[in-house]
Amino acid sequence: MVQYPQIDRTFAALADPTRRGVLERLGRGNATISELAEPFGISLTGMKKHVQVLEDAELVTTAKVGRARRCSLGPRRLEDVREWMEMYRRMLDERLDRFGELLERTKGTPQ
Amino acid sequence: MVQYPQIDRTFAALADPTRRGVLERLGRGNATISELAEPFGISLTGMKKHVQVLEDAELVTTAKVGRARRCSLGPRRLEDVREWMEMYRRMLDERLDRFGELLERTKGTPQ
Repeated sequence: MVQYPQIDRTFAALADPTRRGVLERLGRGNATISELAEPFGISLTGMKKHVQVLEDAELVTTAKVGRARRCSLGPRRLEDVREWMEMYRRMLDERLDRFGELLERTKGTPQ
Repeated sequence: MVQYPQIDRTFAALADPTRRGVLERLGRGNATISELAEPFGISLTGMKKHVQVLEDAELVTTAKVGRARRCSLGPRRLEDVREWMEMYRRMLDERLDRFGELLERTKGTPQ
């Protein structure tokens, strides 16, 4: 089996409602850690940890601007997740097709 | 923020190459725990744990057949992941559109 360390990090990063919320928020525009923390009602330290996980997965980039840390969407746009989902869906579709062919072939056979 | 416990479990279940491999294998047809374990070169106990995570996420169902445990794809077909990805992509597209409009509007203004 091929190993996908990057996609593992991507899926793990997405397995949390706050982190998905941060991506949605940054999709609407850049924000500092404290601007991100406030609507979620969590501490700066808590938000920093979530942002770190997103940064490790290359879903978010951060840059120090004065005393604040500005966050924006990173270079990865979930292409790896989309590709895996697409491959998996094609595989299930092919299985359904084979099942359909089997039904078609057995339709003419006597009971 | 809305909490999505089920989608959290789905993303966490997908954050492992063996578990994604199991889904791909079951997409081609049902299999027992030992049939799943063998090609991955992992122990039955190890595979049982992976299958349990997939079962908790409702991505896999299992049934005891004689002394074996037969695994098949569960009721969930990653619709929740697809829906979230689709929502997120629409949001990014809208942001790009707004950026395009902004460019369009500023094009006519004097330098």
